[in-house]
Amino acid sequence: MTANEFDIIDKYFKRLRVESNAVVLGPGDDCAVLSIPTGHELCVSTDTLIEGVHFPEDAPAEIAVSRTMAANLSDLAAMGAEPHAFVLAITMPSADERWLESCSEELSRNIQQYAIPLVGGNLAKGELSLTVTVMGTVPAGESITRSGAKPGDEVYVTGSLGDAAKGLELQRSGIEEGFLVDRYRAPTPRLQAGMGLRGLASAMIDISDGLMSEVGHICASKGYGAEIMMDAIPLSAELLKATELVTATRMALFSGDDYELCFTAAPSKREAIKALSGKLGLPMSRVGLIVDEPGINVRRADGSALPHDMTGYQHF
Amino acid sequence: MTANEFDIIDKYFKRLRVESNAVVLGPGDDCAVLSIPTGHELCVSTDTLIEGVHFPEDAPAEIAVSRTMAANLSDLAAMGAEPHAFVLAITMPSADERWLESCSEELSRNIQQYAIPLVGGNLAKGELSLTVTVMGTVPAGESITRSGAKPGDEVYVTGSLGDAAKGLELQRSGIEEGFLVDRYRAPTPRLQAGMGLRGLASAMIDISDGLMSEVGHICASKGYGAEIMMDAIPLSAELLKATELVTATRMALFSGDDYELCFTAAPSKREAIKALSGKLGLPMSRVGLIVDEPGINVRRADGSALPHDMTGYQHF
Repeated sequence: MTANEFDIIDKYFKRLRVESNAVVLGPGDDCAVLSIPTGHELCVSTDTLIEGVHFPEDAPAEIAVSRTMAANLSDLAAMGAEPHAFVLAITMPSADERWLESCSEELSRNIQQYAIPLVGGNLAKGELSLTVTVMGTVPAGESITRSGAKPGDEVYVTGSLGDAAKGLELQRSGIEEGFLVDRYRAPTPRLQAGMGLRGLASAMIDISDGLMSEVGHICASKGYGAEIMMDAIPLSAELLKATELVTATRMALFSGDDYELCFTAAPSKREAIKALSGKLGLPMSRVGLIVDEPGINVRRADGSALPHDMTGYQHF
Repeated sequence: MTANEFDIIDKYFKRLRVESNAVVLGPGDDCAVLSIPTGHELCVSTDTLIEGVHFPEDAPAEIAVSRTMAANLSDLAAMGAEPHAFVLAITMPSADERWLESCSEELSRNIQQYAIPLVGGNLAKGELSLTVTVMGTVPAGESITRSGAKPGDEVYVTGSLGDAAKGLELQRSGIEEGFLVDRYRAPTPRLQAGMGLRGLASAMIDISDGLMSEVGHICASKGYGAEIMMDAIPLSAELLKATELVTATRMALFSGDDYELCFTAAPSKREAIKALSGKLGLPMSRVGLIVDEPGINVRRADGSALPHDMTGYQHF
C-alpha cells in the first residue's frame, strides 16, 4: 500500500464531482444530501460485482466498472426511473494505481453519459469487488413493477438477446473486441426505453439472468404463465454469424448479462410501443403472451414446445 | 452450497419485511420504491465492513451486523437525519445457515429498534463482508455538515470515548462480555442526539476514527484549529477501572469505533445543549474550542500541550 484511503479518494475520486440539481451536499461529509423533486418517488437498488465471479480475474477496471454500472442502472431502467445519484463501495487488495486511474476514468464516462452524480463511497481492503447503490426518481405512482402483468398482455424485449453470453465466451478464448465482446463488457442500460414505457408497460424487469428466468419472475407473483414464440426472439446478425441458430436461441433464452428489458403490455399499446421503439432507434420485439396457466412454454413455429429447464443463472 | 440466492433470501430475509410509510414497494423487484416526505432532503451513506478487518474473523454474525448497522446509522446521526430505509449487500464464501440465521435475527433487532426498513439487498459469493447503504431524511436545509464550525464555537462529544478500543482489546484476549466489550460489539448510533442538535450544532461528525482525526475533519475545510481540554474528555468509569488514565486518554483521543458524535456549537447554545443532554439521558461534554489558527492542541490542566500525531486510523 502506498496511500491511505483519504489520499486515494483525493487522487482518483475527487475529480469525479459534477454539478447536479439533485445534490445539495456531495461526497466528503458523513452523508451526501440529495434533493428529491416534488411529486416523485425514489427507486433504490444495490448490486455487488466480484472479480472472478461477475467479471474476469485481472480484467481491466473499465470492464468491472462498466458492468457494475450497467447492472445497477439497468435496475433503474426496469422501474421506468430516471438516474438521480449513486454511491460506490470498493474493496481491493492493494492500492493499485493503474487500476484506480482506469476505474476513475470509466466512472467519469458513466457519470457524464447517464447524468448521474457519484455522491459517496467507501474504500476498504479486501478482494476486488464493487458495490453500487443506485437511486433514481419516478413520478409518484408511475414506477413499473414486475407484478403488473395480466393474462392477454403481450411480452416484449428490447434490443437483441444472447450477445453477452457469446461475448463472454469469445473473451474467454482471448478475443478482446467486437460487437459481441462489447455487449458483455459494457452493456447498455435501457434507461430511455424504461422511462418511455411509463404508462405503456404493465410489468417490466431487466434481463440479467436470462429471458426464461425473468419471464418467470413476471409470472410468479400471480401464478400466471407465458407462451414464448421462439422465432420472435431477437437475435443479432453478429450472434448468428458467430454461432448456430440453436445455440444462439439457447443463449438468448437462458443466458444473462444482456441487460435488455423484458416488459408486458396490453395489445392496445402496440402502436405506441412501435412509435417509442422508432423514436429511440431501439427494437422492441413482441415475443410472447401472458396466459392464465402457470408454466412458461417456448413454442417452435410449428407450435411444438421446446424442452427446457428454468433455473437461469445460479448465484450460489 | 445448499441453497441458491433466491432460496436464501426467501428463508432468511423475507421475514424482515416491516410496514413503513417510507416504503411504496419493498424488496423483490428491480428496485425498491420509497416515498420521501415533502419538504425533506435525503441523506445517504455507504459503509463496508469486512471480516478480519472491521470485525474479528469467525465473529458471530451479531457482531458483524450490529457493527455495520451502527457505522451506517451513525453517519445519519451525524447529519441530524432520521432513519428512512437501508439496503444490504452481503458477500459470503458459502451459505452458512447458522450465520444467516443469526444475521437475520440481528437485522430484525436493528430494523425494529431504529425503525428503519430493509428495502433491498444483494447476495454474492466472496469473502465475508457487509455493505450497507443507509438513507435518512432531514427537513430541507437543516442537515448538519462537518464544515459549519466557526472560531469561538465550542467542541462537544456525546457519551464516553475510548470504550470500544478497550473493548476490542479485551475481546482479543478472550473476554466475551461486559460494558466495554459491548461498546465495541454493538455501538449505539446517537440518532436522537443528532436530530435534537438540529438548529444547535454548527458542525457535526461521528467518531469512527478517533476524536483527534474527527476534530481535524471539522477544522480542515476552513483552515481552523482547535484547543482540546484533556481533562474534559469523557471517560467511562468502566474504562478507568480497566486501564490507567494515560492509556484511557490515548484511546479516547486516537482510537475509533465509539460512534459517539463530535459537534460544535456557539457558546449561546450551552443551556439548550444541557437541556437536550438531560432529556436524552446522554452526556454531552464540552471538551474544547475552535480557534482561528490551524492545528489541534490537546492541553493538560496546567496549559501545556500534549504531544501527538494526527493520523487516526489508517484504512490502507
